[in-house]
Amino acid sequence: MIIVLRSDVSQEQVDHIVDRIKKLGLTVHLSRGKERTIVGAIGDESARIQESLEVLPGVEKVMPILKPFKLVSREFKPEDTVIDIEGIKIGGVQLQVIAGPCSVENLAILQETAESVKEAGCGLLRGGAFKPRTSPYTFQGLGEEGLKYLKQVKEKTGLPVVTEIMDPRDIELICKYVDVIQIGARNMQNFRLLTEVGKTNKPILLKRGLSSTTKELLMSAEYIAAEGNDRIILCERGIRTFETAVRNTLDLSAVPILKRETHLPVIVDPSHAAGKWDLVAPLAKAAVAIGADGLLIEVHADPENALSDGVQSMKPSKFSALMDDLRKIADAVGRSL
Amino acid sequence: MIIVLRSDVSQEQVDHIVDRIKKLGLTVHLSRGKERTIVGAIGDESARIQESLEVLPGVEKVMPILKPFKLVSREFKPEDTVIDIEGIKIGGVQLQVIAGPCSVENLAILQETAESVKEAGCGLLRGGAFKPRTSPYTFQGLGEEGLKYLKQVKEKTGLPVVTEIMDPRDIELICKYVDVIQIGARNMQNFRLLTEVGKTNKPILLKRGLSSTTKELLMSAEYIAAEGNDRIILCERGIRTFETAVRNTLDLSAVPILKRETHLPVIVDPSHAAGKWDLVAPLAKAAVAIGADGLLIEVHADPENALSDGVQSMKPSKFSALMDDLRKIADAVGRSL
Amino acid sequence: MIIVLRSDVSQEQVDHIVDRIKKLGLTVHLSRGKERTIVGAIGDESARIQESLEVLPGVEKVMPILKPFKLVSREFKPEDTVIDIEGIKIGGVQLQVIAGPCSVENLAILQETAESVKEAGCGLLRGGAFKPRTSPYTFQGLGEEGLKYLKQVKEKTGLPVVTEIMDPRDIELICKYVDVIQIGARNMQNFRLLTEVGKTNKPILLKRGLSSTTKELLMSAEYIAAEGNDRIILCERGIRTFETAVRNTLDLSAVPILKRETHLPVIVDPSHAAGKWDLVAPLAKAAVAIGADGLLIEVHADPENALSDGVQSMKPSKFSALMDDLRKIADAVGRSL
Amino acid sequence: MIIVLRSDVSQEQVDHIVDRIKKLGLTVHLSRGKERTIVGAIGDESARIQESLEVLPGVEKVMPILKPFKLVSREFKPEDTVIDIEGIKIGGVQLQVIAGPCSVENLAILQETAESVKEAGCGLLRGGAFKPRTSPYTFQGLGEEGLKYLKQVKEKTGLPVVTEIMDPRDIELICKYVDVIQIGARNMQNFRLLTEVGKTNKPILLKRGLSSTTKELLMSAEYIAAEGNDRIILCERGIRTFETAVRNTLDLSAVPILKRETHLPVIVDPSHAAGKWDLVAPLAKAAVAIGADGLLIEVHADPENALSDGVQSMKPSKFSALMDDLRKIADAVGRSL
Repeated sequence: MIIVLRSDVSQEQVDHIVDRIKKLGLTVHLSRGKERTIVGAIGDESARIQESLEVLPGVEKVMPILKPFKLVSREFKPEDTVIDIEGIKIGGVQLQVIAGPCSVENLAILQETAESVKEAGCGLLRGGAFKPRTSPYTFQGLGEEGLKYLKQVKEKTGLPVVTEIMDPRDIELICKYVDVIQIGARNMQNFRLLTEVGKTNKPILLKRGLSSTTKELLMSAEYIAAEGNDRIILCERGIRTFETAVRNTLDLSAVPILKRETHLPVIVDPSHAAGKWDLVAPLAKAAVAIGADGLLIEVHADPENALSDGVQSMKPSKFSALMDDLRKIADAVGRSL
Repeated sequence: MIIVLRSDVSQEQVDHIVDRIKKLGLTVHLSRGKERTIVGAIGDESARIQESLEVLPGVEKVMPILKPFKLVSREFKPEDTVIDIEGIKIGGVQLQVIAGPCSVENLAILQETAESVKEAGCGLLRGGAFKPRTSPYTFQGLGEEGLKYLKQVKEKTGLPVVTEIMDPRDIELICKYVDVIQIGARNMQNFRLLTEVGKTNKPILLKRGLSSTTKELLMSAEYIAAEGNDRIILCERGIRTFETAVRNTLDLSAVPILKRETHLPVIVDPSHAAGKWDLVAPLAKAAVAIGADGLLIEVHADPENALSDGVQSMKPSKFSALMDDLRKIADAVGRSL
Repeated sequence: MIIVLRSDVSQEQVDHIVDRIKKLGLTVHLSRGKERTIVGAIGDESARIQESLEVLPGVEKVMPILKPFKLVSREFKPEDTVIDIEGIKIGGVQLQVIAGPCSVENLAILQETAESVKEAGCGLLRGGAFKPRTSPYTFQGLGEEGLKYLKQVKEKTGLPVVTEIMDPRDIELICKYVDVIQIGARNMQNFRLLTEVGKTNKPILLKRGLSSTTKELLMSAEYIAAEGNDRIILCERGIRTFETAVRNTLDLSAVPILKRETHLPVIVDPSHAAGKWDLVAPLAKAAVAIGADGLLIEVHADPENALSDGVQSMKPSKFSALMDDLRKIADAVGRSL
Repeated sequence: MIIVLRSDVSQEQVDHIVDRIKKLGLTVHLSRGKERTIVGAIGDESARIQESLEVLPGVEKVMPILKPFKLVSREFKPEDTVIDIEGIKIGGVQLQVIAGPCSVENLAILQETAESVKEAGCGLLRGGAFKPRTSPYTFQGLGEEGLKYLKQVKEKTGLPVVTEIMDPRDIELICKYVDVIQIGARNMQNFRLLTEVGKTNKPILLKRGLSSTTKELLMSAEYIAAEGNDRIILCERGIRTFETAVRNTLDLSAVPILKRETHLPVIVDPSHAAGKWDLVAPLAKAAVAIGADGLLIEVHADPENALSDGVQSMKPSKFSALMDDLRKIADAVGRSL
């Protein structure tokens, strides 16, 4: 850790700072330049230590050298983590596309959608039973009934299922019915929820928050890993910017950055970022080209009658054509689909 | 609701759109211009209705005319809501400053801080027992022990207390000990938590999310109000922008915008936005001048040894001087403190 | 244009608004709903007209129906514009990669870099003679000397050259030496410069501003087209967001959005967005997959000794390998390179 | 400067890095930690030097210790700069309000507006003769005719005048007619224009760019100062964020940050940020409370017929009432108006 002192720092303040660092168990290294005195503090760089130094009189800024996450970092585990979900592997050479409706609405539509996405080559089915909606007056999901449909459709199609959790009180219920638990963008820093899913033995699909940095995403993954669950799939789904032509701006540069920083698999959700189905295909292609380990795509057998997010859902026929296009790009970048 | 059709819309598509609108129970009004056909749809403008129209072939965009929130809107209730917390009124002519430490750490420091902020003129005490921290390896709060300290200090000083809730499972516990429940910025769209606090009879202090618009803040307040609890205090605490010189950019324009759109009181938290105590005073002054109904300020009797956010906490002496300065500005804008 | 009136609008105000719209030569269409009165105004929707209506008492908001740009819109010209630069075509099936050093530094390095990028398959050479630098104390470019080197290298290699203009006073000079004039991101709304380059007969490479929407980019292109020059190449190069892991966030969704809205070719500059050479390759691949018509890439024969932006420049060997990778993705999406 | 090396750096790379730093004339200080080797480089920290180190193999990041601006920094000149414009002082105890129409439209309206703002207590008059407009089809300003009107009105009222420059070719012309030259937000990084106005002897009013950090604003001021002109007034006018309820988000925290970093006066333009006149008053009050040295406010004697930005212009009567309110707040914070 480098502590830059103010240009007007007093000797007394320097002494006090050095003293505090030593008491914290770090090695001190003082360097007086013509314009600034800087202090190197070697040892523990936890946020707690940083904070206790920032507050000292005479300190201008504290610059950490090390990264604040450990278990999820590539330095901790250099090789890629491959997560096995009933035989479907995420994080290896083969890409996985997780598709399905935004919300589970009824058994028939879910079954029809599931069959079509399986036919198109998907390995997992997604569907929301608990839906985070901006307005209290819109459809909030079917709850346990939706989970039951997911399990029934899994039994028929063999596709493992992914669903979102919004409340720590639902954990037991959700674990009974599904194979992968999703933490949505709005809950990326719901630290209690992270801690709870970290105690389960289910793989966790963790979406990046709308205004979260990649570093914060990794810190949230660290929360889960710190509880003992390291089967975490990271998901880029668009960030909030000033641009109004899309719902969110898909930050594809996050994919190579995350792949460099962490051993965890990284997938991309083009549907939520686009906000409209006709942008999903080009964004999905770019995601495969840039090195994503998979995609999360909204597909609905009857988007015109969907109870949520119909406008960003693809019809099965369009989705199937997209899968063919993606297969070619996957080949071109040395992956398979 | 105005539905703008694509320039290449077919007659068949227009007929289908008109038909759907009628089936939704809305009155249709078709207007053909030289360059665009637009459809006025008069009646229910809920998100659900909008979504079901956006998805129709031939539709370019759907533009709502009405606001998506009702109960919290000033059109619904033109006069200001004044919230009474054991005699302390928020939303009236008198400003209220809620001060105290970021986290409750021990009884002595809390007691000392509480006495100093009461002495300086504050009407309420704040203190966190459950803390949302970016890193799993930092101090997470004392939990129930912290709540007990808050209650003890309230009994001694008479100051009603405010604390943050992070988990719906803690509601009963928190309600036993505190007077106002805070929803933090990271939980502004934790819709389950909003629904749960909406069922309590405690006033709710709802902080704006880091990347939430003022409209989304009002939608989250609507979630609480829809459950029957309309004692909601809105709080601007800084938004995420590209600027790195502050932790967050305090959006003071949100205050007059919110005051125009809603009858609820609006307060400002300069401490979290600033990220450093020396910016707290100027931001607090600006907040009073722009018309905020109160402030939420971090004060700590011993910031150098604080377990969280010490760098943004004011010492009691500096805080007391600030209160004197704020009193003058309050006078200048026709308020009291 | 739809004018939404305030809920408390008076009859007198409505009459005044209707009267003004008629005087502006538009057809008025009044619609009284239960909660809002709205006015449709059919005819000219220029910014001038909008502004003169927004200001009227009783008006809540003015919502335009039409787009503010004409000449560059796809509605004005449905087929793709293909720009021919001495036989090199941008905007057709074949992708074009424009490569070269950030700044022209000396003849030898430029010549060496040009030969390598030609060898790798590039059709155009880039190089800055006038450089916009954040600090007044860094290298600002060679000026006319740099332009001369560009022309000399063009004569030897046959590669048409692209260079940036920063000042309207340099137009004649630059036109003498180069084939394509670049408007940098910081000058996207330098309207005088746009007007001046609009009067030349050179193709213009117009970069998106760091905080400009795609609509504003198209308005800036409209400035150029309005002067009679419709040979405009749009370039996405990253926008400013809160993320600090990259210099700028490359907004690849801008590519399909622009291709839908305009007939002009759209290319992508991954080098400036990434800010570091090792991110350039993945971003370039994604850009090809999403449908860009070309790329602008910084290549430097000796990045370690570059006078500007060395850290984001690729070495010729790495660049050549990238071109091979891009060729495969171009094939996969039905383009050639 | 601190250079953090990659965890996998080789000894050969370390040697090469140390060698380069020495050749650049800096003193090297090597520190090997358990997890990272870091190199301190003491001496010149210019952007040029930083860049040449960032590019070296084995370097993870380069962290500057010093600030990139010199002449405008408070370390260079600790006392406040007070700029005297024909007896009107900006930067001292007395606040200055610069008011007037967005564009100069005709002599009569300008004269009427000027008299009213003088009457209300303003020391300077603003008015645009060259207008940066997003659309090429809107009013672009009267040019020299507008400058003449400004000079005539100055002669009658005694108010020094401020106008915006957009093109280096207009410098001589503008210097003939006006007292303060404004650089608009869109030209904050038009480095050629900065250099040119730096060569004049006129005070420069430099507006912050829509997506520029406070540090970048200071770097642009440094461009002007580096040419010998240190009479620079900085102006915060709103930044671009995701919030759509205002045109731009006024970043009032920039005022105390800039006042800490620089000796130059800092004023605030609430009109452009608000985008609507009814938000101007609360924002202006907050700006005075937070410590701005002055305000720039749009006032128009007949906003309904203004040719640009009428919707954000105040009428003289409302402006005069605002000035009375501001005077009270100025008093409350120990300033005068």
